[in-house]
Amino acid sequence: MSRFFSGKYKELVPYTPGEQPKDFKYVKLNTNESPFPPSDRAENLATEAGKKLELYSDPECRALRQKLADYYGVDYDETIVTNGSDEVLNFAFMAFCDTDHPAVFPDITYGFYPVFAELNGVPYCEIPLRKDFTVNVDDYIGIKKTIFIANPNAPTGIALPVSEIRKILESNPDNIVVIDEAYVDFGGESCIPLIHEFDNLLVTQTFSKSRSMAGARLGFGIGSKAIIADLHTIRYSTNPYNVNSMTLAAGLGMLEDDEYVRSNCKTIIENRTYTTNELKKLGFEMPESTANFIFAKHKTVGGKMIYQKLREKGVLVRHFDKPKLVEYNRITIGSLEQMKFLIEKLEEILEEVQ
Amino acid sequence: MSRFFSGKYKELVPYTPGEQPKDFKYVKLNTNESPFPPSDRAENLATEAGKKLELYSDPECRALRQKLADYYGVDYDETIVTNGSDEVLNFAFMAFCDTDHPAVFPDITYGFYPVFAELNGVPYCEIPLRKDFTVNVDDYIGIKKTIFIANPNAPTGIALPVSEIRKILESNPDNIVVIDEAYVDFGGESCIPLIHEFDNLLVTQTFSKSRSMAGARLGFGIGSKAIIADLHTIRYSTNPYNVNSMTLAAGLGMLEDDEYVRSNCKTIIENRTYTTNELKKLGFEMPESTANFIFAKHKTVGGKMIYQKLREKGVLVRHFDKPKLVEYNRITIGSLEQMKFLIEKLEEILEEVQ
Repeated sequence: MSRFFSGKYKELVPYTPGEQPKDFKYVKLNTNESPFPPSDRAENLATEAGKKLELYSDPECRALRQKLADYYGVDYDETIVTNGSDEVLNFAFMAFCDTDHPAVFPDITYGFYPVFAELNGVPYCEIPLRKDFTVNVDDYIGIKKTIFIANPNAPTGIALPVSEIRKILESNPDNIVVIDEAYVDFGGESCIPLIHEFDNLLVTQTFSKSRSMAGARLGFGIGSKAIIADLHTIRYSTNPYNVNSMTLAAGLGMLEDDEYVRSNCKTIIENRTYTTNELKKLGFEMPESTANFIFAKHKTVGGKMIYQKLREKGVLVRHFDKPKLVEYNRITIGSLEQMKFLIEKLEEILEEVQ
Repeated sequence: MSRFFSGKYKELVPYTPGEQPKDFKYVKLNTNESPFPPSDRAENLATEAGKKLELYSDPECRALRQKLADYYGVDYDETIVTNGSDEVLNFAFMAFCDTDHPAVFPDITYGFYPVFAELNGVPYCEIPLRKDFTVNVDDYIGIKKTIFIANPNAPTGIALPVSEIRKILESNPDNIVVIDEAYVDFGGESCIPLIHEFDNLLVTQTFSKSRSMAGARLGFGIGSKAIIADLHTIRYSTNPYNVNSMTLAAGLGMLEDDEYVRSNCKTIIENRTYTTNELKKLGFEMPESTANFIFAKHKTVGGKMIYQKLREKGVLVRHFDKPKLVEYNRITIGSLEQMKFLIEKLEEILEEVQ
C-alpha cells in the first residue's frame, strides 16, 4: 500500500478470481467456463470488427441491446450491457445501495458481493443459508434492504423457483432486488418476464458461461426503464465505451446462434448428470445443481486434500478455504472427456488415501 | 431517474462522448481516432484469441504488462492495464482523492475529470488556464491536492515541457500527480522516465489514439510499485477481468509493430502541419498543437456555425458549447485525403457566409 492510498480503502480486500494458468497443462474445471468455443459466426463477426478497431465502439451498444431486447421480449430501454456481469453488479451496488439502503445477501454466495459492498462503502449483512445450503425465503420477506440473490446460487448450484422470488419482490416494493442469473441457462428459471410486473427488479446475466464468451467480457442487466436509466447514468460517468467492438460483435453472433448455445447447454446438463452419478458412486455428496458446476464433498476424505491431489494429477477445481465450505470443492462441468478424466483421477486419489 | 437511485448520485451529470454515427456517411474528425487500422499482426493475434473466448482472459494481463514494461523501460510491477485509459483515470480518482485529498485540474481540459470527481464524491477545483490556453505551472506549485494534468492538454493540444512538470512533482511530494498522456505520441514528451525519481507520479496512456485501438478499449498506467499496487487493489475489487483476451492480444501486436505506429504518427504530424497552414490561409487561429487534433477558431465566423455547416456537408468535428470554448472547434487530424476534404468544405462555408 502506498502512503497516498485513500483511507476509505485501507481495509479493502479484493476478490480473488479462480486461477488462470497460462501453460494449459491442466484440465481446467475451476472457473465455470464452457468447454465449447464460441460459434463460427461469433468468431467471424469479432474478426470483422477487429479490422475497424481504430474507431471507437458504439457507446450506446445499440445493435447488441436491440438484439438482446428482441431475444428476451423486453424493450431496448430495459437493457444495459457491461464489461462482464461483474460490472453491472458493481453499478447496482453503486446506484441502489448506501447507508440508507444497506445490501443483503446469503452468507454463502458469489464472493464478489461483499467486495463490491466494501468498495462502495455500503453497509451489508449476510444471511446464513440453511444447513442444506438452501435460501430461506422468509429471511428476505419485508427486509427493506437492497437484496442480491444469485439464482442458481454459487458455489452451491441450488436454484430458487421464480414463485419464491416473487414473494421477495412483493414484500420489498421500495427496495431493489437484484437476481444474478449467471448460471440460469443450465436448468434454472429466469425472472426476466417479471420485470414488467415489478419496477424494483434487476436481472443480471453474463455471456461468460452458456454463451462461451468468458474471455470476451460481456454481461447485461434487464429491468424497468427507470432503473436501467440510473445504471446508464453510472455507466456514462464511469466508462461510456465499456464494451469493445469485437465483444459487441461476438455477442451478436452468439445470440444469432442460439441453437448452438442451447445444444451446448443440453450437453452440459447431460454431463452433469453423468458426473453426479459417478461422484455418488465414489462416495461424494452434493446438493442438486442447476448450474454448470457441482459442489461436492466426500463422505470421508477432506475437501482440501482432494483439491490438492487433483491439482497434482493435472485437474484444477475450485476450493474455498472458508469454515462452512472447506470440505467441498466446486467442480465445473466440462466436456464428457474432461469429466471422465476427473472421475478417473478421483478414483486414483480415493485408492491412495483410503 | 428511478425512485431507488441513491441520493449521492442525484446531481451526477454523466460525460458526453463524441458522437459515433453508425451510418459512416461522415468524414469523422470528432473523437481523435486514428485514420489507420491496427496492424495485420494485431488483427491476427486478436483473431487467434477470438477462437479461445470460452476461457477467461488472464486477470493479471501478464504478457501485455511485461511487453509494456520492456517497451517503456520500467518494471512489470510498475504497470497496470485497464479497459481504456478512462478506467485507470477513474481508479486514480478513487484511490488517491477524498475529502482530505481534493482533486485539482485546469478549467479547460478533458471533460471527464469533473465527472470522475463527482462520481466518487471527491471535492475538486478547476484552475483557469491563461488566456492563451497555456497552463500556468506556478498555480500548481505546492498546491497539496491530487493533480490531474493532460499533457498534451485536450482540447487545446498544447504540451507542457517535462521540466515544468518536474517542478509540480517536486513541490507536491505528498500528493499524487497524474499526467494523462493520451496524446503524447504526436510530438509530446513523456514523463514515464520520471517514475523512478518521483514516487508521487502516475502516468496514464491509451492505445486509442496513436495505436489505432479505440474500439478495443485498452489503456494503461505506469508509476511506482506502491501506487500501482493500490490501483490493482481497486481493480481486483471492481473487475479483475477488466481487459478481454482479444484486446490483450491486439495490444501485444501493436507494441510489436512499433515501426508501423511511429510511421503513422509521423504521417499525422505531417498532416497536422498541412492542415494548420491551410487553416491559417483561411483565417483560422489556433494554439500550436502537439496532439492529433487542432483547436481552431475563425477570425470572423462563429464556432457553432462552422460546426453545423461542416456537419451538413458531411464532416463531423467536436464543438463544446461552453463559454470559453464556443468559438472553437476541435478537429481531429486524419488522413491527408480527409484533411483536404475538410479544407475544401471550409472554403465553401466561408464563401457562403462571408
